[in-house]
Amino acid sequence: MDPSPPDAPADPWVVVTHRVIYGDTDAMGIVYYGTYLRFLEVGRNEYLRARGGEYRQIEAAGYVLPVLEVNVRYRAPAVYDDVLEVRTRVGKVSKVQLSFEYEVRRASDDALLVTGSTSHASLDKETRRLVRLPECVLRWLPQPSS
Amino acid sequence: MDPSPPDAPADPWVVVTHRVIYGDTDAMGIVYYGTYLRFLEVGRNEYLRARGGEYRQIEAAGYVLPVLEVNVRYRAPAVYDDVLEVRTRVGKVSKVQLSFEYEVRRASDDALLVTGSTSHASLDKETRRLVRLPECVLRWLPQPSS
Amino acid sequence: MDPSPPDAPADPWVVVTHRVIYGDTDAMGIVYYGTYLRFLEVGRNEYLRARGGEYRQIEAAGYVLPVLEVNVRYRAPAVYDDVLEVRTRVGKVSKVQLSFEYEVRRASDDALLVTGSTSHASLDKETRRLVRLPECVLRWLPQPSS
Amino acid sequence: MDPSPPDAPADPWVVVTHRVIYGDTDAMGIVYYGTYLRFLEVGRNEYLRARGGEYRQIEAAGYVLPVLEVNVRYRAPAVYDDVLEVRTRVGKVSKVQLSFEYEVRRASDDALLVTGSTSHASLDKETRRLVRLPECVLRWLPQPSS
Repeated sequence: MDPSPPDAPADPWVVVTHRVIYGDTDAMGIVYYGTYLRFLEVGRNEYLRARGGEYRQIEAAGYVLPVLEVNVRYRAPAVYDDVLEVRTRVGKVSKVQLSFEYEVRRASDDALLVTGSTSHASLDKETRRLVRLPECVLRWLPQPSS
Repeated sequence: MDPSPPDAPADPWVVVTHRVIYGDTDAMGIVYYGTYLRFLEVGRNEYLRARGGEYRQIEAAGYVLPVLEVNVRYRAPAVYDDVLEVRTRVGKVSKVQLSFEYEVRRASDDALLVTGSTSHASLDKETRRLVRLPECVLRWLPQPSS
Repeated sequence: MDPSPPDAPADPWVVVTHRVIYGDTDAMGIVYYGTYLRFLEVGRNEYLRARGGEYRQIEAAGYVLPVLEVNVRYRAPAVYDDVLEVRTRVGKVSKVQLSFEYEVRRASDDALLVTGSTSHASLDKETRRLVRLPECVLRWLPQPSS
Repeated sequence: MDPSPPDAPADPWVVVTHRVIYGDTDAMGIVYYGTYLRFLEVGRNEYLRARGGEYRQIEAAGYVLPVLEVNVRYRAPAVYDDVLEVRTRVGKVSKVQLSFEYEVRRASDDALLVTGSTSHASLDKETRRLVRLPECVLRWLPQPSS
């Protein structure tokens, strides 16, 4: 992927909150490691919405953006009834790929619980072949500063 | 639904086992109540397979059998690493509906943990209208004894 | 269970919304039948909060309210990105049991998608024996009108 | 982490199979990206069992091995009713950490669907402090060849 220029200001976080339910947790008493991938999906859905878009429009335009890769680092556990802040921003953007970066923090004390990233390919919905990112997505992304 | 005749011998159980993972449990230390609906799905998939069928063939034939209703009674908890036996049989069958009955038992001591049932409508996959149960499904069901 | 008197006014619904993510859905293109049990858990958590309580306090007071039984009727499907309204109220209350009733509606057109109920036993957290519903829960419940 | 010596023979894969259910999939028609973290958990549970151990024994001995990090690369999609082979082996081992490596393949044609890894810290169950990997775990791990 073409990296963003190193001096570009970071894209501002889009924040969405979630209160932990029993269904998110496991018998270790904490949020199950796989549950965070649900939270990251909520994060990128709401990122697009905050930028004026919707993932649904991408599909309606004939594209899909499947997850190619996910990386998650678990720094501290979350427990039942914690209010979590899921923070999402765009990372790298190339002609045919896009990555999101995430932080999950506990709202009560701002503790950093999880950091992660997902990368996505731009595919034609029918042929499943790699294609340039659709116009609508490019409009929603942070614009180069000059 | 037309009930099965009261003196019909019960359909024999089809049994499949599952070992509980952390992802099945919650912070109460036991299997989450919603996780059992996954186990019931495994149960009815394997019921059809044991009878010579596959749910995939139903869809290929142009039908779907969506869940109309689920009832589950939680009698005793299951914990991490328990081996569960999911037992499934057909309950009532009418022209356009079908129900499954389930038991979940702990393999080590045969303790009855959960009982339940699901009922399913026979729909045309395209029109989503109620239609007679497809031939293939009728062939897989327990046959009337006379 | 002792039924509520038949002429008691129904407890008003407490409403919480949820936007459907891919993680809630399945390959039939609709919300998976088991996912609704997560939504019902959110519903009863928020019911207690709206009444001035929290499930956490029940556990802190030495009680648990495990699910004894769940019944769900699926009336119409929900799809990706639908905003759902989960409506919860208390059903029957006896000395040692409590039930919740639920409706899930699509916010855009108020369509009724799912109805259901859960019943819960009041247990001592340590001994796991059936005990009277704790004082704190009784304070959060709808009060008899006279 | 101390890397394994570069000329060490790789630890042999331990293989467990799973048939995809609707509850594993999403409305894109494929297995949801978060569901694979369940499969990886099954993989490492069965790895330990194949080596003569059980995760339960680790906890009984007073230790926990929480996930510090997960990396997953999605190479090709799996669909409903696919039989998946989850292959697990130990990656790097240091005094206080351990990593597992995974492959998920479709059984019918051996297609590689997913590769991934998880790293785990060795913690005292009570103090949650980093401690040397317990003896029982070391016995289950591949032994240095000389």
